[in-house]
Amino acid sequence: MTSGDFPPDAQATLTIDLRAIIENYKSCHQLAGGIESAAMVKADAYGMGIEQVAPALFNKASCRIFFVANLAEALKLRRVTPHAIIYVLNGIFPGHLDYFARHDIRPVLNDLAQVKLWADFCPEKSLPCAIHFDTGINRLGLSPTETAQFINDGAVRQKLNIALIMSHLACSDDSKNPMNRKQLDDFKAITGQFPGIPASLANSGGILLGPDYHFDLVRPGLLLFGGNPRPGHRPKGIKPVFRITGKILQIREVAPGDTVGYGATWHPGKPRHIATINIGYADGYLQMFNNRGRVYAGGKELPVVGRVSMDMIAVDVTDITISAGDDVELLGEHITLEMASEVSTLSQYEILTGVRERYQRIYSLND
Amino acid sequence: MTSGDFPPDAQATLTIDLRAIIENYKSCHQLAGGIESAAMVKADAYGMGIEQVAPALFNKASCRIFFVANLAEALKLRRVTPHAIIYVLNGIFPGHLDYFARHDIRPVLNDLAQVKLWADFCPEKSLPCAIHFDTGINRLGLSPTETAQFINDGAVRQKLNIALIMSHLACSDDSKNPMNRKQLDDFKAITGQFPGIPASLANSGGILLGPDYHFDLVRPGLLLFGGNPRPGHRPKGIKPVFRITGKILQIREVAPGDTVGYGATWHPGKPRHIATINIGYADGYLQMFNNRGRVYAGGKELPVVGRVSMDMIAVDVTDITISAGDDVELLGEHITLEMASEVSTLSQYEILTGVRERYQRIYSLND
Repeated sequence: MTSGDFPPDAQATLTIDLRAIIENYKSCHQLAGGIESAAMVKADAYGMGIEQVAPALFNKASCRIFFVANLAEALKLRRVTPHAIIYVLNGIFPGHLDYFARHDIRPVLNDLAQVKLWADFCPEKSLPCAIHFDTGINRLGLSPTETAQFINDGAVRQKLNIALIMSHLACSDDSKNPMNRKQLDDFKAITGQFPGIPASLANSGGILLGPDYHFDLVRPGLLLFGGNPRPGHRPKGIKPVFRITGKILQIREVAPGDTVGYGATWHPGKPRHIATINIGYADGYLQMFNNRGRVYAGGKELPVVGRVSMDMIAVDVTDITISAGDDVELLGEHITLEMASEVSTLSQYEILTGVRERYQRIYSLND
Repeated sequence: MTSGDFPPDAQATLTIDLRAIIENYKSCHQLAGGIESAAMVKADAYGMGIEQVAPALFNKASCRIFFVANLAEALKLRRVTPHAIIYVLNGIFPGHLDYFARHDIRPVLNDLAQVKLWADFCPEKSLPCAIHFDTGINRLGLSPTETAQFINDGAVRQKLNIALIMSHLACSDDSKNPMNRKQLDDFKAITGQFPGIPASLANSGGILLGPDYHFDLVRPGLLLFGGNPRPGHRPKGIKPVFRITGKILQIREVAPGDTVGYGATWHPGKPRHIATINIGYADGYLQMFNNRGRVYAGGKELPVVGRVSMDMIAVDVTDITISAGDDVELLGEHITLEMASEVSTLSQYEILTGVRERYQRIYSLND
């Protein structure tokens, strides 16, 4: 529910700073040494809202190339960015051809069957596409055997308007993993067969691996949204882009002998003030935060106590002055994705894309 | 995206069987020995869609009482069930009073400040409310001290139209936990002070604890949606209500020496066929399923191999005959909430409410 006739504090709040996303995009561009940068906006722009994020990047950061996972996402994106270049990573299926053509959406072709489907469909190589070569993640893309076959099949290559060739790194979040270099070498060998065609290998982690990995186009996702693929080394210029605040529904005094929450897993050692906050696992704040999460209020980090409920958490607020109706930060500038990931063992990616619908969403774009 | 001009297989599919939810509601009624049953429809009806679920329960199962977490949910619900009784569990705040009155929504009053706010607001006890007494979960509700004070304050009680008194069990999913009996005894003592006013204690777990816990109204949530608060003992008449199917984007052959997915965590011991499916953690299928999840296709359970990606999983389909474009079941009749919870260590509640937006939703209501 994002609008309607109700007071703004009727539910918890998600504030998204579009200006920070724009600045992170520009920082990615700099981290990649000025190479052109696309934007990964699949999964509703990592949960931040594709309909707000993509136009902001197009209009305010001159981002021209966007990647989404599937055709439904592409069509939603097309409505809000009529002039963007849109690639669909999942590839193409027989019933989808007309949609790609009619809405000027580019498929990323992932195997020879998809290559043939698109080549047969496109009259005189009029419609651009990307070719995805798998170099080891074994998820999507032409296998080494198919790659060799494709390279040698001049007839089919002639029929295609190949606007981009790409591959995807399996271990880019770990700079020391030898698989990165192996994938780089394999992709270099492939790009050598496609002179003049732009090539792309690097996701956020790949950008941080350095210039060898940048080729002609980088494809940041996590970095745009303030995450950090390499915890401990904050990338230059990347900042948090969103803030989740919950409201205190009630504050209660508990004492030794009491328990808090489902399963009665938390017992106070001495009298404490416990605040019940209006966010729970149904909002993406999962039970991995049970007795481990931290929230920020009154200038302090405060511990989540007991189990996370569907719609609520309990927080020990004994050490600060705060009242029912006040807000606390669950994620944002003080409780970063990196910190939340560390205490919960959820990945930053999961926490980010786990942000749910049940928030009052506020978008800011201060110039 | 739930509608629009795109083919149905442009994204994965979530099929919700409203008839099964109706039947589960009726089974709850029977499990509770014919006591009146409300429906918990907070968190967008546990992810299943409040705008579809609540009218189905109202119109086809004569459910009259609904509970939601917050005012925003209540207003959404009011639009689709104009004649339902709606309670808001989170209580009431100063800026919300008019909304409750105007839309005939009932607050669950959780402390004496809320009691006073509502009593002062309501002219001549015209507007009904519920009173929540905490009996040990220490989350919401009047504390024992406040409870005693409230019971003795005839003046304030006179000003209120108390339609329901309630409490909430902390350990109802564990029938052997002595806290259940303690909460029951405490709640019984309270109900004795409110003759003639309906009382409610039991959530889904409480329904299964037996008649002592049922009082005048039960409040099932998980059971309505096919979950089971007491794994191993399937409650009579409760059936799965939804099915998530993903589409195979591509099938590839891998051999010893290859790895699959991010971090290269899975290595085949012999040649295998690996299918890439269009569902990932952004759809609520979290990384706790890495190398542990099971999907169902071709009459068999098949293992998830490697890490779950944002938009994809990989499944070993060597043992069945299946092709790109075909569907597999991730959750449903064969891969139940209970099974998925067991392999992932996520709670059934989290898996259910974790069902995300990026599905083609199909509602069925076969008579």
